[in-house]
Amino acid sequence: MTTFKIAVMPGDGIGTEVVPEGLKVLQRAIEVTGTDAVLETEHFEASARRWHETGETLTDAEMERLRAFDAIFFGACGDPTTPSGVLERGIILKMRFGFDHAVNLRPSKLFPGITSPLADPGEIDFVVVREGTEGAYTGQGGVLRQDTPAEVATEVSLNTRYGVERTVRYAFEKAQSRRKKLTFLHKHNVMVHAGHLWRRTVEAVAAEFPEVAVNYQHTDASMIYLVQDPGQYDVIVTDNLFGDIVTDLAAAVTGGIGLAASGNINVAGTAPSLFEPIHGSAPDIAGQQIADPTASILSGVLMAEHLGLTQVASAIQAAVEADLAERGDTPRSTAQVGDAIAARLG
Amino acid sequence: MTTFKIAVMPGDGIGTEVVPEGLKVLQRAIEVTGTDAVLETEHFEASARRWHETGETLTDAEMERLRAFDAIFFGACGDPTTPSGVLERGIILKMRFGFDHAVNLRPSKLFPGITSPLADPGEIDFVVVREGTEGAYTGQGGVLRQDTPAEVATEVSLNTRYGVERTVRYAFEKAQSRRKKLTFLHKHNVMVHAGHLWRRTVEAVAAEFPEVAVNYQHTDASMIYLVQDPGQYDVIVTDNLFGDIVTDLAAAVTGGIGLAASGNINVAGTAPSLFEPIHGSAPDIAGQQIADPTASILSGVLMAEHLGLTQVASAIQAAVEADLAERGDTPRSTAQVGDAIAARLG
Ligand SMILES: CC(C)[C@H](C(=O)O)[C@@H](O)C(=O)O
Ligand SMILES: CC(C)[C@H](C(=O)O)[C@@H](O)C(=O)O
Repeated sequence: MTTFKIAVMPGDGIGTEVVPEGLKVLQRAIEVTGTDAVLETEHFEASARRWHETGETLTDAEMERLRAFDAIFFGACGDPTTPSGVLERGIILKMRFGFDHAVNLRPSKLFPGITSPLADPGEIDFVVVREGTEGAYTGQGGVLRQDTPAEVATEVSLNTRYGVERTVRYAFEKAQSRRKKLTFLHKHNVMVHAGHLWRRTVEAVAAEFPEVAVNYQHTDASMIYLVQDPGQYDVIVTDNLFGDIVTDLAAAVTGGIGLAASGNINVAGTAPSLFEPIHGSAPDIAGQQIADPTASILSGVLMAEHLGLTQVASAIQAAVEADLAERGDTPRSTAQVGDAIAARLG
Repeated sequence: MTTFKIAVMPGDGIGTEVVPEGLKVLQRAIEVTGTDAVLETEHFEASARRWHETGETLTDAEMERLRAFDAIFFGACGDPTTPSGVLERGIILKMRFGFDHAVNLRPSKLFPGITSPLADPGEIDFVVVREGTEGAYTGQGGVLRQDTPAEVATEVSLNTRYGVERTVRYAFEKAQSRRKKLTFLHKHNVMVHAGHLWRRTVEAVAAEFPEVAVNYQHTDASMIYLVQDPGQYDVIVTDNLFGDIVTDLAAAVTGGIGLAASGNINVAGTAPSLFEPIHGSAPDIAGQQIADPTASILSGVLMAEHLGLTQVASAIQAAVEADLAERGDTPRSTAQVGDAIAARLG
């Protein structure tokens, strides 16, 4: 019997509604597949609610305790009255950087039964491997002469061979195990310094994967392809900021962020990885039990895969796909969707 | 009789095919509207072709001569064998920075008769006001320990109150003359230094335009809205890099970059503004007279407006819209499209 320690962090808004469904389905899948594993969960409060009450986000002591966990199952955090950046820096990015989440993994698949906003989407099934610990996300930079007409602000994108290479290698491994096609997105005609480091790294790692076909696209041009021919992609690798933008478009063309899951992966196994829906806390629909928990449930698939529970992962994936294929127009509550998917597990 | 000195820079590939059509339609529109103006054109060679032959892009002497022109009518430059960045820095960005093109203006309209790749696009009619002279485009940054495992590369986004404010004010003026709605795109929850300068500037300028409703979106979230509800936008204002990305998506949802025009505007009138299609030189279809010249012709509309030739501008705009509305499936050559639009001018 293997025990996995899972830190559960629902957060705010619909995060608190979808995470229980994700866990419910995971637990049920472990049972029905007869997997010899136990998820030992512990709640962590990382939310706007807590910040309003105590001024705390995630404390350093909690970060230390979290290191002993096997994974973190996260919902979403934020509310309209918390200043921009407080929870991002104090919770989300604190964990991505603190737990060295080199890879932000974001699958995009147009499931049977789901309507794409594209008139002619074709088959869409790719994953984005987004770098997660550097680029424009490091907070480097500053402001000079604030609130004067001579004000200057810089924002530094920091890129290291070390950080880029591990992400690029992960992407090649993914491509090798899939359709063997890797698309590298950047803007190296303009961002020459970072772009050329990325380019040379992709070329170097490509030599280790002779079977993988590599092509390059400017990030701006990829906007057009993602709308006109998204079926061309198998694995996309890109930096933190481009990845942030591209994955929202990828989620949109595959039927919306209600379905988009992600994993923040510590590739060296030195700290817990984190699994979360791409969507936010959605204050406008929170508290009504109308949020779709599918993205959280699919984040459970990524977590199960990461923990080596492959049977659990594929059972949930199949149950979700069956549920999506037969979704009618009758509205279901958040818990009803979770129950329906759990029931399909057998 | 007013004489306008226009520098004509077709460039490479389809640039050399579409620019003559843009000029043909402009000249014809001046005639038929009886406008008392003459376009005095002079050819400038700014191309991959020239770079291969001479190693030159645009020389400093040419930049100096160009200052005396009233506007620049540009096609596209680049070919597959020119290294990334050479023509961008040596031609396109050299002019944007050298001629202080504060605003990169990019209208997006879904014209009657044009099929959007979106299943349900609704009405789309907005303009993006993209900052054109700073942000991630300045080339600031560098590489340390190149080609070692310890390599580091930085790319600095540089933002000034001076540069941001003039762009933001231009955007508010545009919104004031349109549907009075401004959407500010950034990522100020992560890029806090630059983001907060932008935010404070938008708030300050907003006070001068009490009739304009302002809202903010994260750039990643805007990807979803541009696909699910592009009709919500009137004027978008954003930085150089976000603007680069968003305008390609905007072009895609309104039927492709074959139709997307842009103006690089020197808002102070201290140097010539430049008008160009958003598309590139498209080596794959170049030399076959199959490129659509509509984006170049619509760039002529933006140039005519900029020069104060409002009758010319609206005549061409009407002719283009009429042509688009009645485009059948019969393929036409580049020149045939130009001729058809010219003929509709009367
Ligand atoms: C909330 C924010 C910090 C985050 C990001 O920018 O990465 C989000 O947009 C995401 O994509 O997970
Ligand atoms: C060619 C390139 C430098 C340019 C840019 O990045 O601005 C292009 O993509 C554009 O949008 O005009």
